[in-house]
Amino acid sequence: MNFHILTLFPEMIEQGLNTSITGRAISNGLLSIEAINIRDYAFNKHQSVDDYPYGGGAGMLMQAEPVYLAYEAVRKKIAERKPAEAETEEPAEAEQLEEKPVTGSEEEPVKEKKLRVVYLSPQGDVFSQGMAEELAKEEDLVLLCGHYEGIDERVLEEIVTDYVSIGDYVLTGGELPAMVMVDAISRLVPGVLHNNVSAEFESFQDNLLEYPQYSRPEEWHGKKVPPVLMSGHHANIEKWRREQSILRTYERRPDLLEKSNLTEKEKKWLKDQIND
Amino acid sequence: MNFHILTLFPEMIEQGLNTSITGRAISNGLLSIEAINIRDYAFNKHQSVDDYPYGGGAGMLMQAEPVYLAYEAVRKKIAERKPAEAETEEPAEAEQLEEKPVTGSEEEPVKEKKLRVVYLSPQGDVFSQGMAEELAKEEDLVLLCGHYEGIDERVLEEIVTDYVSIGDYVLTGGELPAMVMVDAISRLVPGVLHNNVSAEFESFQDNLLEYPQYSRPEEWHGKKVPPVLMSGHHANIEKWRREQSILRTYERRPDLLEKSNLTEKEKKWLKDQIND
Repeated sequence: MNFHILTLFPEMIEQGLNTSITGRAISNGLLSIEAINIRDYAFNKHQSVDDYPYGGGAGMLMQAEPVYLAYEAVRKKIAERKPAEAETEEPAEAEQLEEKPVTGSEEEPVKEKKLRVVYLSPQGDVFSQGMAEELAKEEDLVLLCGHYEGIDERVLEEIVTDYVSIGDYVLTGGELPAMVMVDAISRLVPGVLHNNVSAEFESFQDNLLEYPQYSRPEEWHGKKVPPVLMSGHHANIEKWRREQSILRTYERRPDLLEKSNLTEKEKKWLKDQIND
Repeated sequence: MNFHILTLFPEMIEQGLNTSITGRAISNGLLSIEAINIRDYAFNKHQSVDDYPYGGGAGMLMQAEPVYLAYEAVRKKIAERKPAEAETEEPAEAEQLEEKPVTGSEEEPVKEKKLRVVYLSPQGDVFSQGMAEELAKEEDLVLLCGHYEGIDERVLEEIVTDYVSIGDYVLTGGELPAMVMVDAISRLVPGVLHNNVSAEFESFQDNLLEYPQYSRPEEWHGKKVPPVLMSGHHANIEKWRREQSILRTYERRPDLLEKSNLTEKEKKWLKDQIND
């Protein structure tokens, strides 16, 4: 999967994402992350990309044209990368097969798949694990990072397909949110995580929080590891962990618990715990 | 305000936060951001900080002791920085005055203000602008970044005061969430933003999304700037912007609109728009 990040601070993206899982996946060729400097597409000699907002107000606005030219450069680069696909009209990947319309007018030309362009903005839909799963199916994803007071509305109307916010708080720019999205989405691209690691977020996807975990030593600051974890009894360990997940979700995120699939037995167990 | 970030990847934090507003506030002395490498507090010759989880399961767990020792080093450093405060039992800052209990048993010793330690975790309360405002009042804030499968539960019980999640999605570690929190909180520390810039997030705090903005040129790709913005009529511009904010919030985030304070006239205006 290829991430194309349009930003005024490419060095922030490049330095922040080179560690850890994402870095390994880049060297394995499973991911590419390219930061495109919008300033390279400034159309005046001062390389300025911002101007005052019409109607007045605090701060500066990123202008339409440099953003548009940076986007166009990415779009052309992607189109040139796959001339064969475009000419033969044959889907090159299994994922695209699924999306091929089953019925449709014969006169209609086969459309090129629309390039997804995400604008990181507090005005957007709130990012979630489900959205990450959906976006991980794209071959290319453009992330547009705003700065200053925002971006001229007209270029957003013209190029943006998705408005996404990573949460209800205000940040300086779109760079950290873009990095958060790249991290969350990358983990879902097949092959990026080793299979044994991927189990780690299963419980979250099931709308239950993680159970508590313990490592050596057996006793630390007078606190012992719960005996069941030392028992070697696999079924009991699984049962205890599931119960702890349920209890913790009940205590900390009751909104998630409502969406989880508890058995009747588990519901009764939780009720007994609460009444104690 | 001083941020102390406990992490296995200090270089990621240091490089990612040096740009933009945070970087300027650091050079102005308004903020300090220190990344503490937990690995420096490993207690064996291999500098390992992780081990298998008791009871089995995928991946490795960060052990209690290195995390505890890193936290203790930070706690001591903060205590040494303000010996006068601790000895005289006098609050050194206006903020602390407010938190001093008005009544209380005379025998009770005056407690040192509890150091806030945030563990970044999907198990936590979801981060919000309100939480950022509250945390911006702290003089010191410790952010603990997990990695691998998480951290031994016992050290979390012992040192963590707040469990915080930046959203309902799974990330590789706590580093990006810590950077997001530092950015959101820093902006609310007095003096970090210039006054004219701080207006930018007012609308969000009022539970309304930002209105669309336009900069030069007047016409771009056949799209013109809305005439009202060129009118120079301040009151009309304000009215148009407020209406656009309301309309946009209605369309994109109806959940926020319910919490905003619309006048009766504005409610009627919105109703007319929707019925058109």
